[in-house]
Amino acid sequence: MPRTKGDHEARRRDVSEAVWRVLAARGFGGLSLRAVAAELDATTGLLTHYFPTKRDLVKHALDLLEERSGARPRRAAEEGLPAVRAALLDILPITDAAVDGNRIWVSSWDAALADPELSGDHARRYGRSRDRLRDMVATAQRLGDLPPGDPGRVAAGAQSFVLGLAVQALFDPRAFPPRHQVELLDDYLAALACAPPAGGGPPPPS
Amino acid sequence: MPRTKGDHEARRRDVSEAVWRVLAARGFGGLSLRAVAAELDATTGLLTHYFPTKRDLVKHALDLLEERSGARPRRAAEEGLPAVRAALLDILPITDAAVDGNRIWVSSWDAALADPELSGDHARRYGRSRDRLRDMVATAQRLGDLPPGDPGRVAAGAQSFVLGLAVQALFDPRAFPPRHQVELLDDYLAALACAPPAGGGPPPPS
Repeated sequence: MPRTKGDHEARRRDVSEAVWRVLAARGFGGLSLRAVAAELDATTGLLTHYFPTKRDLVKHALDLLEERSGARPRRAAEEGLPAVRAALLDILPITDAAVDGNRIWVSSWDAALADPELSGDHARRYGRSRDRLRDMVATAQRLGDLPPGDPGRVAAGAQSFVLGLAVQALFDPRAFPPRHQVELLDDYLAALACAPPAGGGPPPPS
Repeated sequence: MPRTKGDHEARRRDVSEAVWRVLAARGFGGLSLRAVAAELDATTGLLTHYFPTKRDLVKHALDLLEERSGARPRRAAEEGLPAVRAALLDILPITDAAVDGNRIWVSSWDAALADPELSGDHARRYGRSRDRLRDMVATAQRLGDLPPGDPGRVAAGAQSFVLGLAVQALFDPRAFPPRHQVELLDDYLAALACAPPAGGGPPPPS
């Protein structure tokens, strides 16, 4: 029987699922055509059809990571500081799915830093994420939830905070259970709300 | 001529230097006996004498990373908030040597997360770093530079902030030149200084 387009797409989905499972279990350092083939119970020959080189496999894994991160369910929240808080909570490894996603993101950094093109792609991904956060911060400032100042600078700081917290929580989940991660984020946001203006903005109206 | 103990130690230092150069250029993902041998202009056979397995090489690289991080020059600062700030500046990639060190730390996370023993070692390393920071925060609180509250919680937040800032600066050095990293750290510290007490501590004396 001839293969249909539907077969082909189903097969691609299976391959992507297998890549994801390998990444969640072993990270980018453990990602290889052989490991994905074993996960699929297929031959490496079949996989070279999808990924002629190891680098094609890594690029696919990074695209998959971005796609799945983009498609993950988001917390609903009112605009202003609650929206900023929800967006930051969406990043932290406080659910099983978010632990897997963070594990894979953190593990991608080694592969990405070793390759200028992949590193540039990552820089753009984090830049877009900061831009989204910056717009939420600007709204929170407009609503008076946060003091005035450069919203891009506040967003860069907030993204730094959650990325570093995620790294520490991955290595030491007992010291950073979800409840404690949320407490630390709330400490951070409380400090932001009381902070002097960042970036030389005007003082708050008295 | 028989080899002396001095020869042997000099050789070990050469091997460690070569491991470090491979890590700085390619990260843990690019670390292999072959790459270190090429860097040393030696045979992989010689290296298996030092590192019987790839995992021994990775463990040596992690020990080397800890040793070099521990031995790096530190900024001098008065106790209190200046000491906290100096310790955080010592972590950020704002000098060439600190860029290499951070590049290698970040790249180590993939290798470490894939191995429970290495992951536990990393968790202990970050725990010790938070403990040192906690003691500095407690002093800053005692001196009135920071509001009262759980100093361990403040240290965990501050360490998160600089780790995440380091990651972003590695990927996007143009968006995060050293001057901007320092500004963002100073925004963070200014917010901490004005923050309500973390961890349910008593309110500051009025």
